[in-house]
Amino acid sequence: MTAARPFFTLRWRAPAGLEILDQRELPRTERYVTLHDARETADAIRSLAIRGAPAIGCAAAYGIALEAALHAGAERPAFDAALERAFAVLAASRPTAVNLFWALDRMRRVLTDHIDTSPTELADALRTEAHRIVEEDVAANVRMGEYGAKLVPDGASVLTHCNAGALATAGHGTALGVVRSAVASGKRVHVYADETRPVLQGARLTAWELRRDGIPVTVLPDGASGHLMRTRRIDLVVVGADRVAANGDVANKIGTYNLAVLAHRHGVPFYVACPRSTFDVGLDDGSAIPIEERSPSEVTGFGSEVWTPANVDVFNPAFDVTPAELVTAIITEDGVIERPDRDRVEAMLAG
Amino acid sequence: MTAARPFFTLRWRAPAGLEILDQRELPRTERYVTLHDARETADAIRSLAIRGAPAIGCAAAYGIALEAALHAGAERPAFDAALERAFAVLAASRPTAVNLFWALDRMRRVLTDHIDTSPTELADALRTEAHRIVEEDVAANVRMGEYGAKLVPDGASVLTHCNAGALATAGHGTALGVVRSAVASGKRVHVYADETRPVLQGARLTAWELRRDGIPVTVLPDGASGHLMRTRRIDLVVVGADRVAANGDVANKIGTYNLAVLAHRHGVPFYVACPRSTFDVGLDDGSAIPIEERSPSEVTGFGSEVWTPANVDVFNPAFDVTPAELVTAIITEDGVIERPDRDRVEAMLAG
Repeated sequence: MTAARPFFTLRWRAPAGLEILDQRELPRTERYVTLHDARETADAIRSLAIRGAPAIGCAAAYGIALEAALHAGAERPAFDAALERAFAVLAASRPTAVNLFWALDRMRRVLTDHIDTSPTELADALRTEAHRIVEEDVAANVRMGEYGAKLVPDGASVLTHCNAGALATAGHGTALGVVRSAVASGKRVHVYADETRPVLQGARLTAWELRRDGIPVTVLPDGASGHLMRTRRIDLVVVGADRVAANGDVANKIGTYNLAVLAHRHGVPFYVACPRSTFDVGLDDGSAIPIEERSPSEVTGFGSEVWTPANVDVFNPAFDVTPAELVTAIITEDGVIERPDRDRVEAMLAG
Repeated sequence: MTAARPFFTLRWRAPAGLEILDQRELPRTERYVTLHDARETADAIRSLAIRGAPAIGCAAAYGIALEAALHAGAERPAFDAALERAFAVLAASRPTAVNLFWALDRMRRVLTDHIDTSPTELADALRTEAHRIVEEDVAANVRMGEYGAKLVPDGASVLTHCNAGALATAGHGTALGVVRSAVASGKRVHVYADETRPVLQGARLTAWELRRDGIPVTVLPDGASGHLMRTRRIDLVVVGADRVAANGDVANKIGTYNLAVLAHRHGVPFYVACPRSTFDVGLDDGSAIPIEERSPSEVTGFGSEVWTPANVDVFNPAFDVTPAELVTAIITEDGVIERPDRDRVEAMLAG
């Protein structure tokens, strides 16, 4: 495994395009597509061409910037109306990852801070804000990685779920950022990647990006995680998050809760790595987090293969909630919240 | 959903053929193939054309009967040599389900009980013994179903893993036999079927056979079982088994252990349904059960789809072991072993 040419998750393309790596085609094809407005961006988010809570936030910010650029020549009322539609279409793209709403709030604040500004200047300000969100995301991931790397022993076997890597963020990754930082600090790390049905982000994306970086990775079916913990040494589990409630309950990709329960039984530390933008302290606990249910077609087959009987009933929640009591620590860009609870989450976010 | 024409898992086809439903093609195609000797039977077992611990035992018995019929015209030394090769090739087909070895032992006993018999008469005796194994299997499943049905409340939601149905046996099924018997007794039952990666026996086979019987079924990704237990009422879990050790530890399809741990956390009864032929009291506990590891290609894709990067490392154990402490009861054809342990298993098998 040798490192190949670098890839990127998303990149602004002047004067007004958002280039993204189409993750639906990975690992077979490394294809970049350019999005031109908020609706195309929302479609890309909804269809999982771009996914991962932090990356969704970044893409949504750029979706607003794209729409602003498109209407920069309009009068302010028409510009404002176009932007309202853009906010609405982006906010409706996916319900669970709070980073989406957090990023849209930041973009809206630029609007409300510039009541008397021309559309041209506003478009510049919005693009600048989107760039800032992206830069902050990468910086946060690097800091998170440094905090997290201290929790990874040399020679560690690390189990992860879904893809919380560079592909799920603007770069470096959250859970995989912890792995990357540990490797960068000279530690040897072997990653076990749950394949993560139904969309197979582990088998497709985590395996792909780790191999690109020359980090050893083994893919397993989600159901094999318990047997793995029983029969091989697993030093820690680390996953990302789509939303963290005020009490430390964590919404993440479906199957995360199963993994947390198993890690608990086996005494394996269970870490969540996510930026501050993933916390939603407006929600008392995880029971209030909206859980997206996606199309049955994600479960009934993959690509051209259909393997269930026709019209079979399907249960396809995209996320689940892991109660804080099962979380050993939440790794953020501002430090590690050990044994998260309401007070410790509040203290970290206030600090 | 209306009941369609009946299907069968395997059937002797005179004078010397074993007709099986090729389960690799389900649910898309209902295709029966005829096997002619022990090697073809072993290949069918290895390739999962026929699978499920009790069905493997029945097929192996017929594999010996096929070989005996083929060599019925030979002298006894040549006949014996051919049968030895048949025993060897069948015994090497799959390592975990003990029913395979149990059935081969029964067939061997016919041989050793007929030292001075002609090959022609022996071939008859072996075919008769294979028929008996099959008839006993169906009868055991029906009795098991009657015991198990008493544990299923009316209106129950039942979660199962893999396929422990008619397709995994000579008929009626073990875990799904419990469901069938409950339905036959007038109870309403809704089955949730884990899709069961990597081979998708739940999505393909359990969904197919339950729909054929008009029993409501919902398919879910394996990783969604915890979220299911958190958000919907699940009355019980019931699964089959490939081998049960003397202390009640249960080897079954990979992912069963995860489900048992989750059921335990949620206070959901966890039942195992299997015939006496699945017990291997020669093994002290589950740690001695050989766990088959299968080809990476089962994990890297399905059918014509390949979704991992090329040459990715894969962990693909076909089974896992659930410790007896997580098993609420084992349902057998001779009664229910509540809270199984060494003494209770021994008492049931002796009784």
